[in-house]
Amino acid sequence: MQYKRFNDTYMLRIDKGEEILKSLTALCEKEDIRLAEVSAIGAVDKAAVGVYDLEQQAYHREDLEGLMEIASLQGSVTRMNGKPYIHLHTTLADQQNKTHAGHVIELRVGATCEMFVRTLPGEVIRKRDEEVGLNLWNF
Amino acid sequence: MQYKRFNDTYMLRIDKGEEILKSLTALCEKEDIRLAEVSAIGAVDKAAVGVYDLEQQAYHREDLEGLMEIASLQGSVTRMNGKPYIHLHTTLADQQNKTHAGHVIELRVGATCEMFVRTLPGEVIRKRDEEVGLNLWNF
Amino acid sequence: MQYKRFNDTYMLRIDKGEEILKSLTALCEKEDIRLAEVSAIGAVDKAAVGVYDLEQQAYHREDLEGLMEIASLQGSVTRMNGKPYIHLHTTLADQQNKTHAGHVIELRVGATCEMFVRTLPGEVIRKRDEEVGLNLWNF
Repeated sequence: MQYKRFNDTYMLRIDKGEEILKSLTALCEKEDIRLAEVSAIGAVDKAAVGVYDLEQQAYHREDLEGLMEIASLQGSVTRMNGKPYIHLHTTLADQQNKTHAGHVIELRVGATCEMFVRTLPGEVIRKRDEEVGLNLWNF
Repeated sequence: MQYKRFNDTYMLRIDKGEEILKSLTALCEKEDIRLAEVSAIGAVDKAAVGVYDLEQQAYHREDLEGLMEIASLQGSVTRMNGKPYIHLHTTLADQQNKTHAGHVIELRVGATCEMFVRTLPGEVIRKRDEEVGLNLWNF
Repeated sequence: MQYKRFNDTYMLRIDKGEEILKSLTALCEKEDIRLAEVSAIGAVDKAAVGVYDLEQQAYHREDLEGLMEIASLQGSVTRMNGKPYIHLHTTLADQQNKTHAGHVIELRVGATCEMFVRTLPGEVIRKRDEEVGLNLWNF
């Protein structure tokens, strides 16, 4: 990965073979990014996306391989347990032009990923909500 | 819903059972937000999305139920007739990992919705365009 | 097209019949925009989207006609060979509520397109990478 800061925004290029969640976490740790809005496009060759099942409080997971376009990738950097907490959702298009979408469990870059990380001042810490079984923004 | 302002940006958490368009409208009225760029992810359990039919000047409406991920939600806050005008488009993934997308008619939160509302100074008022049958940005 | 600047951000309305890549390029040339994050929604009536094939170093192209919603449109303005370089990905929904997504080859507006172009200071120049066959961000 390579990156450069422009005012409040980091532009992050993630390279073939690198994992997007890990790369973004590494950037946040290195640059002490505590709060940010994230958006990206690119192409991946391995992905796992999830759709949440509220009754089971677990994600239906879909595993995908082969080069896919990231049509959109959106989400945030917040904090939990003293560490960066990355939460991203994506829409992908595969080689058969079929679309897949959901919560990002894993995304491995297949060609490049071009990400904007727009930092905000302060921090937001997530807190577990037992009713929905998720870690929610807590102001 | 809960929210907090960070410089020019409101982070808005919309909770289970709340309607996204209504919640965002309430935020805009309470905080006098007149112009903003909006993006969000989350999960909903009831949705209606539309695809515009130019000849009929009406939306083909698709009604959806069951927990679905918001893979992306993008749009704007402008003004019309002295009130906030919310215009959002979304891509959803359902429990069968099938994707749905279009103009947001209704979105009821099913787990949480995490929204960034980036305000801009000034205002943009929409004006009806009879050729396309839509209320367009008017500078 | 019509546009107006609000601080660091241009709001760009692209009208029926206009091509989105050409319109955004024209804005960048006229206003000397060298670096920006782009997001938009709207409706198009002609589109070509691509999914990259790494082995062939070429895009599988899907051509689409009929009014379609732009559920999301994301990407960037950078520079290459002394000119603006626009890179956008999109998710579309057609009249049968089917979704299509990928790298934007062509998008002709069918009703309206509402775009935010958030400028950043400085410039990023792309450089051809022979391994992946794409022009990558080069810091």
